[in-house]
Amino acid sequence: MRRRSKVLLALLSVSLATPLNAQRGPSAHARDSAPGLHWLEPYREPASRLIGEALGSTFAWDRLAVLTDTIGNRLSGSPALDRAIQWAAAEMTRDGLENVRTERVMVPHWVRGSESAEIVEPVRHSIVMLGLGDSVGTPGQDGVQAEVLVVHSFEELDANAPAARGRIVLFNVPFTSYGETVRFRSAGPSRAARHGAVAALMRAVGPSGLRTPHTGALQYAADAPKIPAAAITAEDAERLQRMTDRGVHAVVRLKMEAHFEPDATSANVIGEIRGREKPDEVVVVSGHLDSWDVGAGATDDGGGCVVTWEALRMMKKLNLRPRRTVRVVLWTNEENGGRGGLAYRDQHRAELPKHVLMLESDGGVFRPLGFGFSGNDAARETVRAIATLLTGIAADQVSAGGGGADIGPSMQEGHIPGMSLDVDGSKYFLIHHTPADTIDKIDPVEMAKCAAAVAVMAYVVADLPQRLGE
Amino acid sequence: MRRRSKVLLALLSVSLATPLNAQRGPSAHARDSAPGLHWLEPYREPASRLIGEALGSTFAWDRLAVLTDTIGNRLSGSPALDRAIQWAAAEMTRDGLENVRTERVMVPHWVRGSESAEIVEPVRHSIVMLGLGDSVGTPGQDGVQAEVLVVHSFEELDANAPAARGRIVLFNVPFTSYGETVRFRSAGPSRAARHGAVAALMRAVGPSGLRTPHTGALQYAADAPKIPAAAITAEDAERLQRMTDRGVHAVVRLKMEAHFEPDATSANVIGEIRGREKPDEVVVVSGHLDSWDVGAGATDDGGGCVVTWEALRMMKKLNLRPRRTVRVVLWTNEENGGRGGLAYRDQHRAELPKHVLMLESDGGVFRPLGFGFSGNDAARETVRAIATLLTGIAADQVSAGGGGADIGPSMQEGHIPGMSLDVDGSKYFLIHHTPADTIDKIDPVEMAKCAAAVAVMAYVVADLPQRLGE
Repeated sequence: MRRRSKVLLALLSVSLATPLNAQRGPSAHARDSAPGLHWLEPYREPASRLIGEALGSTFAWDRLAVLTDTIGNRLSGSPALDRAIQWAAAEMTRDGLENVRTERVMVPHWVRGSESAEIVEPVRHSIVMLGLGDSVGTPGQDGVQAEVLVVHSFEELDANAPAARGRIVLFNVPFTSYGETVRFRSAGPSRAARHGAVAALMRAVGPSGLRTPHTGALQYAADAPKIPAAAITAEDAERLQRMTDRGVHAVVRLKMEAHFEPDATSANVIGEIRGREKPDEVVVVSGHLDSWDVGAGATDDGGGCVVTWEALRMMKKLNLRPRRTVRVVLWTNEENGGRGGLAYRDQHRAELPKHVLMLESDGGVFRPLGFGFSGNDAARETVRAIATLLTGIAADQVSAGGGGADIGPSMQEGHIPGMSLDVDGSKYFLIHHTPADTIDKIDPVEMAKCAAAVAVMAYVVADLPQRLGE
Repeated sequence: MRRRSKVLLALLSVSLATPLNAQRGPSAHARDSAPGLHWLEPYREPASRLIGEALGSTFAWDRLAVLTDTIGNRLSGSPALDRAIQWAAAEMTRDGLENVRTERVMVPHWVRGSESAEIVEPVRHSIVMLGLGDSVGTPGQDGVQAEVLVVHSFEELDANAPAARGRIVLFNVPFTSYGETVRFRSAGPSRAARHGAVAALMRAVGPSGLRTPHTGALQYAADAPKIPAAAITAEDAERLQRMTDRGVHAVVRLKMEAHFEPDATSANVIGEIRGREKPDEVVVVSGHLDSWDVGAGATDDGGGCVVTWEALRMMKKLNLRPRRTVRVVLWTNEENGGRGGLAYRDQHRAELPKHVLMLESDGGVFRPLGFGFSGNDAARETVRAIATLLTGIAADQVSAGGGGADIGPSMQEGHIPGMSLDVDGSKYFLIHHTPADTIDKIDPVEMAKCAAAVAVMAYVVADLPQRLGE
């Protein structure tokens, strides 16, 4: 109750102060300075209505709260993901979306099981850890126990190859960017295994938190033994670093029950607003419904599911039916397999040429900045013009490189323009793949703005007289 | 290695830029404007030497790293605290301190054991928790299972007394200040028990972190049944809040093996620099060596132990022997009993009238601001003048209200002036009593400045021609 009043106050101040007033400025500006943008004029009114609808309540945040509170995290193959799929399809139907359906996808079913890590020599100290997704478990009852070799790069590992044999290799690489440090999570285990390591640990991929471990998938190379691998916190990695710097022989025991079960049945969840003139042409908006098996999967990527779905719910509610079909897809298995995106490409192959645009929101639903976009110059011009409708909520940037893990296969196969929702990313990697990925990290007003941005972009692209980019 | 180079660079820039240069300014000022402070002049040189010694290396941080890395956390009664006591006494001897000894103290021996909490209805979700110190455990194999009643104040609990019967009461009070919210941790369990609650949960006392639980002691009232109690994270408290706000009946199962074992033998660790003229008059500097049984007890209060001990080590190294004795005391059992401070009062009762000043550092060793002080006006004037010697490291504030949990009993009994080291407290409660209380949260240069501040204050007070306050 108390939260809600605070939120409503915040909403009130935003909706009074920002969208309507601020929008008039840029709109007038656009009218004056860009006489070629007369086509944009009819979209000002529906854009304002969509923004107003999004900002007028905490519906999106509340829906995400229901998903994350009552279903929680949703790893591929888990009963929770099944529940989430059924829940989403039922709710979409209740929203009045059209052609609501689940499209079957077989997904890998990795199970973490019980796991622990501990320094056992010279004295016992617990280590806060999360096994890496898709890792094998440790053998026997007692797990793996070995002295730790700390390295900071693949080069240092290779240069000390003989020292890795029989050891647990720790990659203690402080977080810089995700791209730079995730390499050690993905490829580190096999790099260490090639030199005879019995297990691999990595400093969790994320900025230093509060003893916060980050999971995420590894990728075993075909030519290396599969060894168990886990992420440990920055604090524990630094402790092992200091111990070995002092010449202490640190011995760690790692126990992991991780294993794969047979592939499981899962599904992408789909709903539509059918186009009023060209229903066979499609604009896809999407997020992934699966998550890692820690935290609540709020930022990664429950939020992306809800804000893209909101675009359709709001169009329905406001009776805005564009020329083309807008389709929301909630992907399965983004985190450890990508089977949802691959299945869509295969199941919709014949239809891909009719896909006008595919958007994925998978960077969190923090303060929206605008969009990343991949497509031809004409399409980019149009997208930039549409984004000016979002100046009032400061979500009008269009930067290079739109796409997403799940829309990637279809974009590539069908040469389809791709788009990502771009948001303030400063909090993202602090909670990414951690037990702290929970809804309290998400601001209801920022999330409403994300929904507004996706809705306006999707509606206008779907309604343009010409197909985007033509 | 890499950390050390960075630290040394930082040290270099600080020691080149700040203490010597900056100190000249205020000193000249003090000389000009306060002709009554001639007595301070002879202390400028030893103060500079102490500051230079502290800032010239990372000795304090390195010593704390050894304590926290190799011994780790140190709850009263644990083998780890015993090891820490033996280690500290041996290291003090190696430092050349005088009259190094351990003074026997019997302490409570609370053991956490295995513990867990889980939402079991309507669906299962794990809760991140830490049992409260001194709590009883849950009965039987299955623990306590009951529906949750969420309240936000004692008044709300009392107004809903019938609803508490048979329930697990959750105090969901967001952190404002420690004083305001710790009441619920201390007194909440008995308040709930009086109304028939079967267990108590509290939102952890600290700002929202990253699914971070905070332990700490509860205090059972004599007239209420003892029920098990645990802290849960802000995230989990908010989840239960939202569930009950939606009308969902949330059932939680709590399992705790917590129990007391018979009182254990422990000790305060003491070392001295004997005074050259009045060795029976004593200045005490101190921190507490025990900690909670999570994290590494770095900020609470390994750092306070090391920086106060540093004062004596540096005096010894620099051959600075004041008129009076400076004594470092590393207290046992601050966290759940205060037996170390009580024992010192009793064991040193005859000597208390000869105690000139007692200082405790228990607020972390972050950027020092100065001191809190309790004593008469004359003493305060003198302390303020001494603090001007710390203007170069910006640790020259003297505010009201110095003291500490362990020095309190002796201060009260002996009417002894009391002092606390005051530091930037912005990070303290984020890690207080959590698994994240580890040394990486402490900056070596800030810690060195803390050691410098304590050393200068202790040295000058111990060396004054007249006793402080006379």
